[in-house]
Amino acid sequence: MGKLYVVGIGPGSYENMTIRAVKAMEESTVIAGYTVYCDLVRPHFPDKEYLSTPMMGEEKRVRMALEKSAGGETVALVCSGDAGVYGLAGLAFELEKEFNGVEVEVIPGVTAAISGGALLGAPLIHDFCLISLSDRLTPIETIEKRLRAAAAADMVIVLYNPESKSRSGYLKRAAEVLLETIDGSRICGIASNIAREGEGYRVMTLEDLLTAQADMFCTVFIGNSSTTVIDGHMVTPRGYKSER
Amino acid sequence: MGKLYVVGIGPGSYENMTIRAVKAMEESTVIAGYTVYCDLVRPHFPDKEYLSTPMMGEEKRVRMALEKSAGGETVALVCSGDAGVYGLAGLAFELEKEFNGVEVEVIPGVTAAISGGALLGAPLIHDFCLISLSDRLTPIETIEKRLRAAAAADMVIVLYNPESKSRSGYLKRAAEVLLETIDGSRICGIASNIAREGEGYRVMTLEDLLTAQADMFCTVFIGNSSTTVIDGHMVTPRGYKSER
Repeated sequence: MGKLYVVGIGPGSYENMTIRAVKAMEESTVIAGYTVYCDLVRPHFPDKEYLSTPMMGEEKRVRMALEKSAGGETVALVCSGDAGVYGLAGLAFELEKEFNGVEVEVIPGVTAAISGGALLGAPLIHDFCLISLSDRLTPIETIEKRLRAAAAADMVIVLYNPESKSRSGYLKRAAEVLLETIDGSRICGIASNIAREGEGYRVMTLEDLLTAQADMFCTVFIGNSSTTVIDGHMVTPRGYKSER
Repeated sequence: MGKLYVVGIGPGSYENMTIRAVKAMEESTVIAGYTVYCDLVRPHFPDKEYLSTPMMGEEKRVRMALEKSAGGETVALVCSGDAGVYGLAGLAFELEKEFNGVEVEVIPGVTAAISGGALLGAPLIHDFCLISLSDRLTPIETIEKRLRAAAAADMVIVLYNPESKSRSGYLKRAAEVLLETIDGSRICGIASNIAREGEGYRVMTLEDLLTAQADMFCTVFIGNSSTTVIDGHMVTPRGYKSER
């Protein structure tokens, strides 16, 4: 019986993959995933069979990978960042039972909060939360409730999927919700195209976020009340008590 | 002038390091850090000078590494997990200005929420937050406020530093706070000694968490209202709407 690795490949570059991710792909005969992610790994693993699925639902993609595994192949289903953070690892476990005997193993990877945080400086030194602004599978009321809760509890907030072609204005709306609780001078940051061509970051205020340009290749960071800018970097201190 | 890499080495094993982390350590002449983490990397980079600091404050450790960099060395300051998540990256930026000309670069790594999540299954597929139970630098009232906020907003919660020798009973107290809002049957999990000897995981309920054994090598996961157990794994679905 085959094996399905659900592999987090990190933000995109080979260097940001873990050694374990590389080994899992080397060991696999088939690499499956969304076209963009397949294209990111193909140059490094050219001799594999690719199941590259551009316009397909997530369930169909996972099912295809599981079918290949059930046929005896070792398959690496690749996800950007970490496979367990808004990734396909959950669906793999949910669908596994339909493919008797396939073993699913999740290979952890560097998610955009982590790689984007490193690019911006050190915004995540203290408690933080990840919230996706995509309302494709989550009611917008739930998303806004979480934004308000995180702001009231003074947690650093990382926004995934801030905008896309079909969802414009979502980042502005999130900033408006946060401004109900948080002052406009709060330090924020945007990391773009992490570990890919055009990589960059911008440090700004929450007020600036209302009009900031963002797309699906951006990850947005809202600091906590202690977050500061040091030499152009976004830095959150370790704690609130001073103990040095 | 020298360079300081602040390197997240992941949960512990060589395989869970990124290629970029390995390269940064290869390039460095000095590897600095807490004894336990130095011991984890030493077998893979035996020919380095080690500044291993067992009983020293965090600021002193970072300062020592920056001093070495200022003297012209390339230094890798190693942190477990990610250097930016409760790690030393923040202090490195805060202290950098005292060491004129040292360049600080953060190398992202796989933090315990990610590696522990992969071990447990896929608990972090939807919005989640990281909260440290250590009140060494944060008032316990702030920690409990965050627990209540995350529970009310139905986010998955990952607890870092649940217990230590000097802080026993903290996990029980956190469970009590969460039980104010969340039903005792909520799915929870504990990942232990991730990627090290004695690695393991337990899936349980929030009620069980009241009496669960935990130590500083444990990471604790509290599911959201949709989290389920599939074949012994802790799995959170991608969203609340069903769209397949």
